[in-house]
Amino acid sequence: MPHLSAISRSAAELIATATLTVETPGEGFVEITAAAAAFVRAAGGDDGVLLAYIRHTSASLVIQENADPDVQTDLRTALQTLAPENAGWVHDTEGPDDMPSHVRTMLTGVCVHVPVTKGALALGTWQGLYVAEHRARPHRREVVLSFIGSRRAPA
Amino acid sequence: MPHLSAISRSAAELIATATLTVETPGEGFVEITAAAAAFVRAAGGDDGVLLAYIRHTSASLVIQENADPDVQTDLRTALQTLAPENAGWVHDTEGPDDMPSHVRTMLTGVCVHVPVTKGALALGTWQGLYVAEHRARPHRREVVLSFIGSRRAPA
Amino acid sequence: MPHLSAISRSAAELIATATLTVETPGEGFVEITAAAAAFVRAAGGDDGVLLAYIRHTSASLVIQENADPDVQTDLRTALQTLAPENAGWVHDTEGPDDMPSHVRTMLTGVCVHVPVTKGALALGTWQGLYVAEHRARPHRREVVLSFIGSRRAPA
Repeated sequence: MPHLSAISRSAAELIATATLTVETPGEGFVEITAAAAAFVRAAGGDDGVLLAYIRHTSASLVIQENADPDVQTDLRTALQTLAPENAGWVHDTEGPDDMPSHVRTMLTGVCVHVPVTKGALALGTWQGLYVAEHRARPHRREVVLSFIGSRRAPA
Repeated sequence: MPHLSAISRSAAELIATATLTVETPGEGFVEITAAAAAFVRAAGGDDGVLLAYIRHTSASLVIQENADPDVQTDLRTALQTLAPENAGWVHDTEGPDDMPSHVRTMLTGVCVHVPVTKGALALGTWQGLYVAEHRARPHRREVVLSFIGSRRAPA
Repeated sequence: MPHLSAISRSAAELIATATLTVETPGEGFVEITAAAAAFVRAAGGDDGVLLAYIRHTSASLVIQENADPDVQTDLRTALQTLAPENAGWVHDTEGPDDMPSHVRTMLTGVCVHVPVTKGALALGTWQGLYVAEHRARPHRREVVLSFIGSRRAPA
């Protein structure tokens, strides 16, 4: 049987929202962990959850290993294998990288949440939050960040 | 470094919930963006998040392009390729389309959230919210919609 | 047009959090539905949402069929096919099962939410919540559970 820790309770009094604009250099992962953590601090969040949402259909949000960069190389290879270019896609008016980007976005998703404890993201030791750019060329991407939870007491 | 916009703050005072019943015509995508937006308005939501949850294991929720219908055709092809029928599945008592439907649901997911700003879904320009029906025949699907955030001031 | 039920409204007054520690026996699915439901009851949650988050990059959270165990067998086969061992991964210092585990985690995701109604998880009839262990050997996994919503009236 799984073991449950003690339960902490707070007032869900605050919802804070901002938009993070991320410039991507083309296909690959761009880490936004520090920017998301800075948002929670600036918002005055204490205990609660951070929700992140990317407003696009050819880039996604992925929580994955932040240590060995080889992992990202392999994750990109995996997505390229699962949703290859030149697979006879019907939708090809925006270039050969467009439809595979939609498929990769569908498989990885446009929204995540991360718990927040005492104002800090409760990520695992090896976890980072990334914008996964699936298009070949650089793009400007918008990520909506929302914090729901309790307010940090003024210092 | 990513750029963070100004932060807006509201009271997370309201949680509103309703169930959306969606009749699907069989395998394919059914858009529920307008219905989800109508729910937020009817609930009196202002700033916050919409959470959507589908109570099934062979249909899922997908946020994807709402412009060129060819994209949906290709997304369906991709899912059929990644989780084909007649792949020697052990579980086949409910028909050849059942087990691929479970796999496609696992890959795309049963829950999403969308930020809400001044009572409107903050979807990207090309994003729509869809029930992805993976079974071959028509089904009745239940989607639980929840809004968490601030209340709109009475007009 | 989809049909929307009546809307129920509550005060989003409480956020409660705890960590569930789950011992996995190696690759496969471990059900945590009962533990998640027990958390909501112990937290005193009434109407709202449960959010679950796994703090790892080689294990994920999946909501899938809880009836026929053959479904889990086939889901595992599907993930093994989509992200196989010995596929020439660059990252292989932690063993041949490590990189496929990262890919399977990326495809299935580390966070979910489930609506909560009158203190009970509003799962579909055939849905269960699972930790999907992707590594070959047993691991100890941490799942952060958060409830946001209204408080149950004292009995």
